[in-house]
Amino acid sequence: MTDIPRDMSADRARWQTCVKLARELLLVGSDGEDLKLSYLHTLIDTGHLGPTRHPRKKILVIGAGVTGLVTGRLLKDAGHDVTILEANASRVGGRIKTIRATEHHQPFDDPAQYAEAGAMRLPDFHPLVLALVDKLGLGRRQFYNVDVDPTTGSGSDTPVPPVTYTSFTGRTWTYGDESPDFREPGKRGNSWIRANRVQVRRTEYDTAPERINEGFHLTGDEVRAPVVKLVDDALESVRDYYSDVVDGRRVNKPFDAWVEGWARVIRDFDGYSMGGFLRDYAGLSDEAVEALGTLENMSSRLHLSFFHNFLSLGDINPTARYWEIPGGNWRLPHALHQGLRDEVQLGHRVIRLEYHNPSRDADPEGTGAVGPDGWGVAVQTVAEDNPAGPTRLWTADLAIVTIPFSALRFVEIVPSMSYKKRRAIIETHYDQATKVLLEFSHRWWEFTEDDWREQLDSIAPGLYEFYRQHTEADTEPAITLPDPDAGLLGAAAKSASVSEEMRTLNRSMPLRGPAVRPATHCFGGGSATDNPNRFTYYPSHRVDGSTGGVVLASYSWSDDAARWDSMRNAERYVYALRNLQALHGRRIEVFFTGLGATKSWARDPYAFGEAAIYTAHQMTSFHLDVSRPEGPVHFAGEHTSLKHAWIEGALESAVRVALAVHRAAPVTVPGPGHEEGS
Amino acid sequence: MTDIPRDMSADRARWQTCVKLARELLLVGSDGEDLKLSYLHTLIDTGHLGPTRHPRKKILVIGAGVTGLVTGRLLKDAGHDVTILEANASRVGGRIKTIRATEHHQPFDDPAQYAEAGAMRLPDFHPLVLALVDKLGLGRRQFYNVDVDPTTGSGSDTPVPPVTYTSFTGRTWTYGDESPDFREPGKRGNSWIRANRVQVRRTEYDTAPERINEGFHLTGDEVRAPVVKLVDDALESVRDYYSDVVDGRRVNKPFDAWVEGWARVIRDFDGYSMGGFLRDYAGLSDEAVEALGTLENMSSRLHLSFFHNFLSLGDINPTARYWEIPGGNWRLPHALHQGLRDEVQLGHRVIRLEYHNPSRDADPEGTGAVGPDGWGVAVQTVAEDNPAGPTRLWTADLAIVTIPFSALRFVEIVPSMSYKKRRAIIETHYDQATKVLLEFSHRWWEFTEDDWREQLDSIAPGLYEFYRQHTEADTEPAITLPDPDAGLLGAAAKSASVSEEMRTLNRSMPLRGPAVRPATHCFGGGSATDNPNRFTYYPSHRVDGSTGGVVLASYSWSDDAARWDSMRNAERYVYALRNLQALHGRRIEVFFTGLGATKSWARDPYAFGEAAIYTAHQMTSFHLDVSRPEGPVHFAGEHTSLKHAWIEGALESAVRVALAVHRAAPVTVPGPGHEEGS
Repeated sequence: MTDIPRDMSADRARWQTCVKLARELLLVGSDGEDLKLSYLHTLIDTGHLGPTRHPRKKILVIGAGVTGLVTGRLLKDAGHDVTILEANASRVGGRIKTIRATEHHQPFDDPAQYAEAGAMRLPDFHPLVLALVDKLGLGRRQFYNVDVDPTTGSGSDTPVPPVTYTSFTGRTWTYGDESPDFREPGKRGNSWIRANRVQVRRTEYDTAPERINEGFHLTGDEVRAPVVKLVDDALESVRDYYSDVVDGRRVNKPFDAWVEGWARVIRDFDGYSMGGFLRDYAGLSDEAVEALGTLENMSSRLHLSFFHNFLSLGDINPTARYWEIPGGNWRLPHALHQGLRDEVQLGHRVIRLEYHNPSRDADPEGTGAVGPDGWGVAVQTVAEDNPAGPTRLWTADLAIVTIPFSALRFVEIVPSMSYKKRRAIIETHYDQATKVLLEFSHRWWEFTEDDWREQLDSIAPGLYEFYRQHTEADTEPAITLPDPDAGLLGAAAKSASVSEEMRTLNRSMPLRGPAVRPATHCFGGGSATDNPNRFTYYPSHRVDGSTGGVVLASYSWSDDAARWDSMRNAERYVYALRNLQALHGRRIEVFFTGLGATKSWARDPYAFGEAAIYTAHQMTSFHLDVSRPEGPVHFAGEHTSLKHAWIEGALESAVRVALAVHRAAPVTVPGPGHEEGS
Repeated sequence: MTDIPRDMSADRARWQTCVKLARELLLVGSDGEDLKLSYLHTLIDTGHLGPTRHPRKKILVIGAGVTGLVTGRLLKDAGHDVTILEANASRVGGRIKTIRATEHHQPFDDPAQYAEAGAMRLPDFHPLVLALVDKLGLGRRQFYNVDVDPTTGSGSDTPVPPVTYTSFTGRTWTYGDESPDFREPGKRGNSWIRANRVQVRRTEYDTAPERINEGFHLTGDEVRAPVVKLVDDALESVRDYYSDVVDGRRVNKPFDAWVEGWARVIRDFDGYSMGGFLRDYAGLSDEAVEALGTLENMSSRLHLSFFHNFLSLGDINPTARYWEIPGGNWRLPHALHQGLRDEVQLGHRVIRLEYHNPSRDADPEGTGAVGPDGWGVAVQTVAEDNPAGPTRLWTADLAIVTIPFSALRFVEIVPSMSYKKRRAIIETHYDQATKVLLEFSHRWWEFTEDDWREQLDSIAPGLYEFYRQHTEADTEPAITLPDPDAGLLGAAAKSASVSEEMRTLNRSMPLRGPAVRPATHCFGGGSATDNPNRFTYYPSHRVDGSTGGVVLASYSWSDDAARWDSMRNAERYVYALRNLQALHGRRIEVFFTGLGATKSWARDPYAFGEAAIYTAHQMTSFHLDVSRPEGPVHFAGEHTSLKHAWIEGALESAVRVALAVHRAAPVTVPGPGHEEGS
């Protein structure tokens, strides 16, 4: 026994946890090496897991999201016998999903149009995903988080810059060639900020924030700065834990102090919600919290952990550069799937996972399929396209579980896992994220006022002036529209492709708001508003051969998304259009094709939520247990990383688990008498 | 100007807010009177709103939940011209909803069976709702939150005790007659607690909590007490703010100190989440928080406000007495609806609310329907059963909005409301609550082991022993069952009534777990488990003429409910049954009729959530603004009370708003030229 009083020993244990979390967050390996460099080496430089003393293993991967596909590919290429079980009967990719025309379904009026239902932007500082995209030859182009002046960029045929990563070891890793001609287009900031019925362009807000800020009743110093500065200032004292300001720039402290500084951040702040931090620690007024919650997309997540928000604020900001895959991000999982056609088994939903834990006795509720002389794991599935058919049993040496813990919650696991793993499966908060996408026949958001005149009058002479003069609600255009049957809803709507439900709903909901707002004249980027749409994104690029485009009319999270999730899909389009009109004027209705798409990740029967987003204290309480193997069962996926909701976190976990499984001694060596059941 | 430094004046303002909130919470009126007594007087004793100097008004009530019905009834009876708009085309009652056989739909195999999808228990300390039920002659009987020994009660034909309320003024209010023969049945506690694969009866847990507590890795003092005691102890120092322990009982401090004590509780604790309070303030271990979160239904709400949880802990506890309405709680709104057949307009969903605020100029986006010489409010609706039809405009002197703020978020409001009201509409957290109900042909939860033998062997001789001997999964009964086509799923399933989807799903999902657990032998009450079902409730009473019953297999909140909400309805039944079997043994499958019902309030297109459940600080930030009228627009509903999620809170708000509207001078007096538009 020890003489350390319980409290001191608890404090010491807590500190050790914080140090381990900091190392995991910063990807510091056990010998102080940079794990990111090791992952880049494995996934990109060599594509191989390296030598192992242990023989070929039979491996089951649960889930064909990007994690399962990448880890499956690495393990297959290393000579293992890999099977990837995917519940979806028709696609791989998990929360990377592009809504697009397929053989059986055309979501938009223009078959060339597509839009991202899930992951849509790949940050410049996520080298694994960018280099993987490049290595697979998918091409990439910029995703404009802030709208740009397209005439100032280098054009889409110029090669993109290489992927680079600068390690804390000082080493810089590079993939690809320099692109001396690449020129990023200048940011313009024509998109909107609208709150409390005040609407200004983003550039105006940056230079003169008072009008918007006064709408939130800010006073004193708070009214004179863009709210992002308030949160930025509030975070400075946190950043001081691990970095110093040198010549006006943040520079990380020396290695040991840097890691320890992050450990202290975790110790001191993981118990805070973001709202609690801003109010109680940073001393911001309620109104300031409301303003930055609205404009910086934090309102709906103020009750979730400070730490997640803190990390995110580094991830999504106006100065960062983002990328997307031409043709849609679905091409990433699709390309990975190409080499795994035999390994991926679509349409098999896991309902039970049995495994042999050598440190425990056989479970009395086990089937006997696993054991000291048998297989390590046995997974039972039900066929999604034939639920009446027999269940199927899949056996292997080990399993890699990549599905969200929210989905794993419903899988029967025998024997039960370790205590803290169970708590993590039960408690990990999964957030809501919902998108409503609307298709337009013309890209009105790119229009100048002259374009508006030309386009509207080309549909019906006088239409431009009609909208300028009639601002009252319920005023029917007094001129003859090409398709009067489309009601208020747009001369350009093509009757053949508009669903009857949409038509009737549209006709029944008077589209109000001002007929005209100033032309947005915006290429890419997004607007923010306090109306239910919350965040609107315009396509960064045109689709070849198409005059139209799909606007992400509403992208919302957490409680903001919950409001939309209560609504029927067809209604979402109507409300999303109305809210879009509040920002852009009623006249955009002319170009609405009547078609849209919507995705609620919280309602997806396989995703069970957008992503793991911890509430206060969850990281300290159980994150270290999330990825810890349970006998022959390993864990990967964004939730096992500390880059929650990002593909990069999924990829880190995929390489980590592939290396671990490849190098692991088999937990059990099956005797000759074992074969697969069914 | 003042010499008070800004911080001091802010502190003073905050303290004033806390005092006002305390008075609102405690229903202390402006003259120190007990508002509850005044509400009881109005709703129960007289049924009349009393004299007013102001004439008959034309009033629109939005929403025919219990709030809208009660306020509509009071105002109608006082001579006002009342119209109640309800979006649902087929029913009133809002979140009071009983699933039962109707002319068009039979949810359960036995048409006599029914079950509550929404509000299910009426606490003894909620006098408004209990007295209203009695006044309407609906009858009431006990809802057993803890299972009872039915032989020890006074029987269902004995009159129930009167409704009583003891005011802080010292007065005791009573409705109904004494019932000397009423005898509450003794609590038995045969229902289960199952966590970490350890299962004990509730009575065992109360006397010997160690087995369950050790499963949560509790140590030291924490392991030796039922976890409810841990939270109870943690709350003692909060209760000390406003009450003293006298002779072992809590007694409120004298009036002023009592109110001030509550104000200090709000000041000191409204910034806490429940999890933060338990960890940081009360110093409980993570494991203790996990244990009491699991057993006391707090896990999923740990990130929500301390205050809500604190109030709830007084509301739902084993010592309190609860009631229900025989035949289903739907009978309450139904009875209220009887007197409002002409006033309630079903199937009209509000999409726009325009009002005249005399303190502001006319809104440029207004229709002109309201104004200084016109109506006070104009409400536009769309017909739910005919969305292609024209919208309809309803005008009135004033409106009472009773729908949840989560639903109001999508209503266009012109002019925009006051700043804090808008923040409340945007930010009020609405929680998730989901129920999965399963019907059984026999009440196996009431069985003794002898009953099990008799019942199973009467279906097929040897069936009882079969289940006792075959514990392995996938073992098909070796004997002939009456309905072999039902697969594993129950000899008693009646093929005609089982949906094909349920059938195939059921057959495809092997029902595992132990064939036998000890007989539950439990009348009413509920079990708690860490499996996804979380909370299971058994019917408190039999349905006359029926051998079966409907079990609330899963009742979950917040993050626990979110997991279920991702799932298709048909799948919920299968998983709920499997999880029920983990607790009660596989043999219960024999009695499953194949039918169930499920309700996710977060997915309800009119409710938009279970109820307003604040996150930390929301009460302080904007609750006082929630019920404040905006010109001629008034607000009521559970979210405007501080009894969130309870009918009692809805009723308090209904009477409050009816009195206010009845007594108010009209904001505008319509001239003769005004009539309803359409």
